[in-house]
Amino acid sequence: MSVTVVGSVAFDTLETPFGKRERELGGAATHFSLAASFFTDVRVVGVVGDDFGEEELAVYAARGVNVDDLERVPGARSFHWSGRYEDDMTVAHTLDTQLNVFADFDPKLSPEAASASTLFLANIVPDLQRAVRRQCPDAAIVGLDSMNYWIESARQSLIETMREVDVVTLNDAELRMLTAEPNLARAAHALRDLGPRVALVKQGPYGACMFTSEGYFSIPAYPLETVIDPTGAGDSFAGGCFGYLDSLGDPDPSDDAFRAAAVYGSVMASFAVEDFGCRRLRRLTDDEIGARFAEFKRMMTFSEPARV
Amino acid sequence: MSVTVVGSVAFDTLETPFGKRERELGGAATHFSLAASFFTDVRVVGVVGDDFGEEELAVYAARGVNVDDLERVPGARSFHWSGRYEDDMTVAHTLDTQLNVFADFDPKLSPEAASASTLFLANIVPDLQRAVRRQCPDAAIVGLDSMNYWIESARQSLIETMREVDVVTLNDAELRMLTAEPNLARAAHALRDLGPRVALVKQGPYGACMFTSEGYFSIPAYPLETVIDPTGAGDSFAGGCFGYLDSLGDPDPSDDAFRAAAVYGSVMASFAVEDFGCRRLRRLTDDEIGARFAEFKRMMTFSEPARV
Repeated sequence: MSVTVVGSVAFDTLETPFGKRERELGGAATHFSLAASFFTDVRVVGVVGDDFGEEELAVYAARGVNVDDLERVPGARSFHWSGRYEDDMTVAHTLDTQLNVFADFDPKLSPEAASASTLFLANIVPDLQRAVRRQCPDAAIVGLDSMNYWIESARQSLIETMREVDVVTLNDAELRMLTAEPNLARAAHALRDLGPRVALVKQGPYGACMFTSEGYFSIPAYPLETVIDPTGAGDSFAGGCFGYLDSLGDPDPSDDAFRAAAVYGSVMASFAVEDFGCRRLRRLTDDEIGARFAEFKRMMTFSEPARV
Repeated sequence: MSVTVVGSVAFDTLETPFGKRERELGGAATHFSLAASFFTDVRVVGVVGDDFGEEELAVYAARGVNVDDLERVPGARSFHWSGRYEDDMTVAHTLDTQLNVFADFDPKLSPEAASASTLFLANIVPDLQRAVRRQCPDAAIVGLDSMNYWIESARQSLIETMREVDVVTLNDAELRMLTAEPNLARAAHALRDLGPRVALVKQGPYGACMFTSEGYFSIPAYPLETVIDPTGAGDSFAGGCFGYLDSLGDPDPSDDAFRAAAVYGSVMASFAVEDFGCRRLRRLTDDEIGARFAEFKRMMTFSEPARV
């Protein structure tokens, strides 16, 4: 089993109430692949410039992530995003976006990457997502993320791409925007009517929830007292989720499998925000993941006490 | 066992995307007492004018709610609130507030009301909440609700009152305002440092959560496809919660008891918003409550599937 993720690999300049960091290793495919690497084999498909060196590649290698499909363009620079978060940490203000090599990204997957059992299409232009999806006809589980920009500017292409995937992960505002439906349950229903059998809705500081044919499942956010940097939380969520799903080896995961996967995703997101960029995932351990998974269970469990 | 609730009893004029209703029976003590009545005996302490007639009193009688402590002021009019909700149903815009008899509300509890095992101080001026709390020295469980208006205008009195209660229910914005702490977990910690052992945080369309000495518990909102009128959701939540707690007959409820109570509160809130005012609670049945409690359990339960 293995997961292939296609998406951005970037340097980020990050400002949060806890400080500023320049040139943090980031991008959706980075956060996803590091999170997924705790569960299964991962290949990352992306493009970088020659400013991307051995130091960066060592981060993936340390987690066993395969970078054979990470294209390096000589004489060019990597995608660079700069953003700032206000006190409440819920909204990122983009200060600067330098697409650089990412502007001409046109992924051609190696046979190994194309034969993955699980495929995750991180947030890139929907036409490319669809092209990649068609390079992986044998993927048993295909997930897709997107954002408000594509919902507004490439809506029809995005919807066409969604028809060819199993799971869509969006945040609740994006889901409402896509479906023009303010009610969350109706919006998820409308999304599933497009094709995906699972709607996985990210709700930022409120956690996440999932709509499937078997009903509704809700996962709280872990009640962290200190959130250092929310960048990559959603991608780490997806990484935990699809990494765990892939590890089960079941081409048709049960509702139980999707539920546990959503909890593992929430576990990984809760760690990701504890430090800048992907620093926390880099030093994370399996024991910490297991302990926090058990804590999520305690946060969600109740039973009626005996009556006096 | 019995619950005494002190708070507003009112007529509401309500505008939501689903229509407009004039002179709906409402007020925090009304929503609370109807919700709590499904679990235990309830007494409502409040004040109305002589525009409050047999038709209104029959609503409480039908649910067995005792109104002996509902003062009727001759020649005066009842509290009347008018509000409008926008499409997303999360924010109420107050169009008009006529305090009428409520402006001079100064509750003197009957011996029966003062001897309740559980007391809920709905949202009224903090000085009055404290005065009522001191009329009920034997109450084993005391809960308090408040709002942004009192946090801003009567902060010290509110904090002094909070020192004398067991459970505080606020929404997350109010909790952050009270504690000047944007992080929810830290804000709940700061609230519990004031005295209350339980912080019960209402999160509107995201559900609710609870902080106790034994940790964190999160309850999702029920994924309703149609919310008709959110008025009274928070009071119905509190009514279910404290009504259930009282019914256990345990003067020192366990963490399990508080968790189950918070779920019953969420169950009652989920019904309350299905129709205007308190109409849905009036026609609710025990079987419906039991079925939705079981649905909440399903929405929150997960287990790892066997590996293939």
